[in-house]
Amino acid sequence: MQPPIAPALAGPFSCEEQAAVYRAIYSRRDVRSQFTQRPIDEPTLLRLLRAAHHAPSVGFMQPWNFVVIRSAQVKAEVKSAFGRANAEAAAMFPQELRSIYSAIKLEGIVEAPVNLCITCDRSRAGPVVVGRTHNHEMDLYSTVCAAQNLWLAARAEGIGVGWVSIYHEADIRTILNLPDHVVPVAYLCIGHVDELYEAPELEVKGWRNRLPLEDLIFAERWGLGAATVPAEERTSS
Amino acid sequence: MQPPIAPALAGPFSCEEQAAVYRAIYSRRDVRSQFTQRPIDEPTLLRLLRAAHHAPSVGFMQPWNFVVIRSAQVKAEVKSAFGRANAEAAAMFPQELRSIYSAIKLEGIVEAPVNLCITCDRSRAGPVVVGRTHNHEMDLYSTVCAAQNLWLAARAEGIGVGWVSIYHEADIRTILNLPDHVVPVAYLCIGHVDELYEAPELEVKGWRNRLPLEDLIFAERWGLGAATVPAEERTSS
Repeated sequence: MQPPIAPALAGPFSCEEQAAVYRAIYSRRDVRSQFTQRPIDEPTLLRLLRAAHHAPSVGFMQPWNFVVIRSAQVKAEVKSAFGRANAEAAAMFPQELRSIYSAIKLEGIVEAPVNLCITCDRSRAGPVVVGRTHNHEMDLYSTVCAAQNLWLAARAEGIGVGWVSIYHEADIRTILNLPDHVVPVAYLCIGHVDELYEAPELEVKGWRNRLPLEDLIFAERWGLGAATVPAEERTSS
Repeated sequence: MQPPIAPALAGPFSCEEQAAVYRAIYSRRDVRSQFTQRPIDEPTLLRLLRAAHHAPSVGFMQPWNFVVIRSAQVKAEVKSAFGRANAEAAAMFPQELRSIYSAIKLEGIVEAPVNLCITCDRSRAGPVVVGRTHNHEMDLYSTVCAAQNLWLAARAEGIGVGWVSIYHEADIRTILNLPDHVVPVAYLCIGHVDELYEAPELEVKGWRNRLPLEDLIFAERWGLGAATVPAEERTSS
């Protein structure tokens, strides 16, 4: 079927629909400890991957692939790579923080029924890509958008996702046989969850607080609050 | 108020709520031409920024800032930077594609009531960040998640978003006075929309088709289909 050429009506969602979208955004968590052993069935997994596949991508490049890992052997190899890197990571923190750091669980690789590596094929659409001519990292960013789409869809499905980022990239490349032109962007642990923290776990555990939103907003240029914008730069809207 | 320590119940959303989340994911578009002139009021903009601020971030780093641009002068400077880069971009395509490329509208900088630059402050949580010890780009990826959260919330609000990526980073740094440790990650054009394409504009206009999802999925390791996974790597789940 040819995609339709004419734009379609596109107003705001109903209040209930808006609330559902915001509920997914606010109640999404980075899950490490709450995975149940209930398997993820194929139709559900495909819904999550289809949500990822509908992320925005620079030049409609769709640079992603999805390596779905259910094998205990592959998980064990990744867990081992994490373990090596995490021991190095602990040593990078000041002495007084190391015992706190080591007590924080940072992955659920083995416990999660499914692991998923979302990769970026940097050659997917040829050497010149619309929108990637001046900022070459845009295809990596598109791949991150796919991960975030999946994460929010998973929350709506009652499925938790945890992003693992403590590994040497070379280890993941070797374990998953990734070609040189393919970058592992997001390594995700995925499984049903019955409970979630009401706030990010690192906040709950006192590692770091949420910053006040108003402190993060500038008007017109870096460092300017709304009140400090020169009058000639303000518009009536 | 202290964040609650105990995990909260977290099952799947209702069918209606799930449908709303998927509707946002599937009907989100990269908008260039459909912005109306209706201003975005402050409470609405704050809801979008709050959605962005609730993105996942490595080590709960929250590395983002939001530079909200409404000034015609700043928009004109960014539009000029885009124009320079886009002329260079057109020349990178093979001769036979240049006229097609030049006919595609790739930004709505001036037409959109609000422009928003989401930046990443790479020093936000000190030199050693939980989860960023081995993959230093993770804070940039967190910032992309913030952009995608905002994009989906905006769709639910009836607001369109277009990501502009054709510029020399140095130009954006200069225009917005960004400090050296701050990276412009997403430059977004934002405005109410009454209509949207039913499929991505680059697909509608014949530039590139959506890839079949099934061709993008591997099992266990790169290049393996589900049927080609060695038996010893398959698990019963």
